[in-house]
Amino acid sequence: MGLIDQLLKGDRKAAARAMRLVEDEYPEGREILKRIYPYSGRAYVIGITGPPGAGKSTMIDKLVKHLRKQGKRVGIVAIDPTSPFSGGAILGDRIRMQEHSLDEGVFVKSLATRGHLGGLAKCTDDIIQIMDAMGMDIIIVETVGVGQDEVDIVKTADTTIVVTVPGLGDDIQTIKAGVLEIADIFVVNKGDKPEADKTVRELKIMLDMSAPREDGWKPKVYKVSALKDEGFEELIEGIYEHRKFLEKTGRFESYRKDRLENLFHIMLKDKLANQLINKMKEKGIYEKIINEMFEKKIDPYSVVESIECKCTVKGEEI
Amino acid sequence: MGLIDQLLKGDRKAAARAMRLVEDEYPEGREILKRIYPYSGRAYVIGITGPPGAGKSTMIDKLVKHLRKQGKRVGIVAIDPTSPFSGGAILGDRIRMQEHSLDEGVFVKSLATRGHLGGLAKCTDDIIQIMDAMGMDIIIVETVGVGQDEVDIVKTADTTIVVTVPGLGDDIQTIKAGVLEIADIFVVNKGDKPEADKTVRELKIMLDMSAPREDGWKPKVYKVSALKDEGFEELIEGIYEHRKFLEKTGRFESYRKDRLENLFHIMLKDKLANQLINKMKEKGIYEKIINEMFEKKIDPYSVVESIECKCTVKGEEI
Repeated sequence: MGLIDQLLKGDRKAAARAMRLVEDEYPEGREILKRIYPYSGRAYVIGITGPPGAGKSTMIDKLVKHLRKQGKRVGIVAIDPTSPFSGGAILGDRIRMQEHSLDEGVFVKSLATRGHLGGLAKCTDDIIQIMDAMGMDIIIVETVGVGQDEVDIVKTADTTIVVTVPGLGDDIQTIKAGVLEIADIFVVNKGDKPEADKTVRELKIMLDMSAPREDGWKPKVYKVSALKDEGFEELIEGIYEHRKFLEKTGRFESYRKDRLENLFHIMLKDKLANQLINKMKEKGIYEKIINEMFEKKIDPYSVVESIECKCTVKGEEI
Repeated sequence: MGLIDQLLKGDRKAAARAMRLVEDEYPEGREILKRIYPYSGRAYVIGITGPPGAGKSTMIDKLVKHLRKQGKRVGIVAIDPTSPFSGGAILGDRIRMQEHSLDEGVFVKSLATRGHLGGLAKCTDDIIQIMDAMGMDIIIVETVGVGQDEVDIVKTADTTIVVTVPGLGDDIQTIKAGVLEIADIFVVNKGDKPEADKTVRELKIMLDMSAPREDGWKPKVYKVSALKDEGFEELIEGIYEHRKFLEKTGRFESYRKDRLENLFHIMLKDKLANQLINKMKEKGIYEKIINEMFEKKIDPYSVVESIECKCTVKGEEI
């Protein structure tokens, strides 16, 4: 049985191998993505973000346990800021895997923030496709909510959760501000702390004060405690409620279509630019143009403006 | 006298207007960039980043004052995380401008992290080009060092400075790790604090322990105090020392060429993809392909793979 068949049957080793091929940009990786494409799109994607120190990992571990109780198969894509000293991701697959290593219904994959030729967003989506095709019902994408890239990635989820904790200082405000607008659900973590109720109240007031969202969804606030194992059933209900809202309003499909279109554009850009640059290099004019631009003899804007292409897409002239 | 002539003479209003045209993606903006291109490339670009709370703004204000004493004209591009509530940037041009509003030798421009069609990196570079053409000797690009995008932007500077302060907690470590490898110079800010020397020592030890850099530069550590106005002359000497190193090793030119090439690729991607998508839309096949992909009848990888283009660049067939 081939790798793809094994993957579609949910084989973990096949999935891990497929992910490595995709991550390292092997042609075999793209072949796999092509072949599994018809089998993807079934999983529900939850994006979870929040500032460092919000206890996201512990909260996600508990959330996964409750989802498992409901019989859901769960994939986790953990996007870790790359550490230049360890050379790899800060959280490791191994550490996170241990928790659920005996559970066939959980699959964890860490992605470093650096070194993705096609971009981090593209690679994250590729991994989601594979987890989806291997039969995961719910896929959680976890990021440290500090960068625009990460915000953009987590925003592409069906439901986006922003995690915070009581008593995060003012320094965090600048970070938090950037992710507030993308939250479908807020989770106040460490809900056992005495100040948790105050944080919940403040969040609710802030949400009441802010302009209504275009899509008509009113973000909800949930309080959870990993320590006391409280609030997770309610949170999961909240996620399902948001899903129902998306489906009822037709946004479930339209958002996913937007996302597909966006990924298509990323792929298109890379393909077209690489094709042209390679041809320019073959003809020996690439270096010449770069040098002329560097010497200020021509400007890059005029060069780019001058480009005219005739293309065929699937054999059809455009 | 036209806008461009005024801009090239250093007129502040003309510069501000040009920046708005470029930022809002008006065709006139691109025309300006084309026309000033031959006059850019003279300014020295310093990237300054560091975690929230490191006191970057105060430190930069002092640095600017010392650079002004040396007669340098200084441009500052402040990249501010966008606040969804204020609708704009967190720091405002106005606040920052007040400090130097009477000084013709300083020009401050804030850029929000959101809503740049061609990308934040491209827009930052456009603003740098304008500041350069208006006669700024040194251009400082300031970011809150929290995201990959920001790291990528600040990395394109000639000299990159990472600012830290004594006693930043563990939460910050994950952020700091991501920017450590890009620093040509470390600045320990708030050097008047008793723990500052310890932070300097720790940084030096960490640098000694880490692998030597490919380019052979050994990052330096400087201690400054905005409060006591100490250490800035030495820091400026350090910046000049790094510049000399770049020039001596030929890296000054090669890094700038890499950066030009990178921006050329960004422009190329946008142009080629937009051209093709528009033509597909005209022919009525764009929607059809998106729908077929969405319905899993075809996969995006095969569509993109099938594309073949024949292009002309500056009238020449490629």
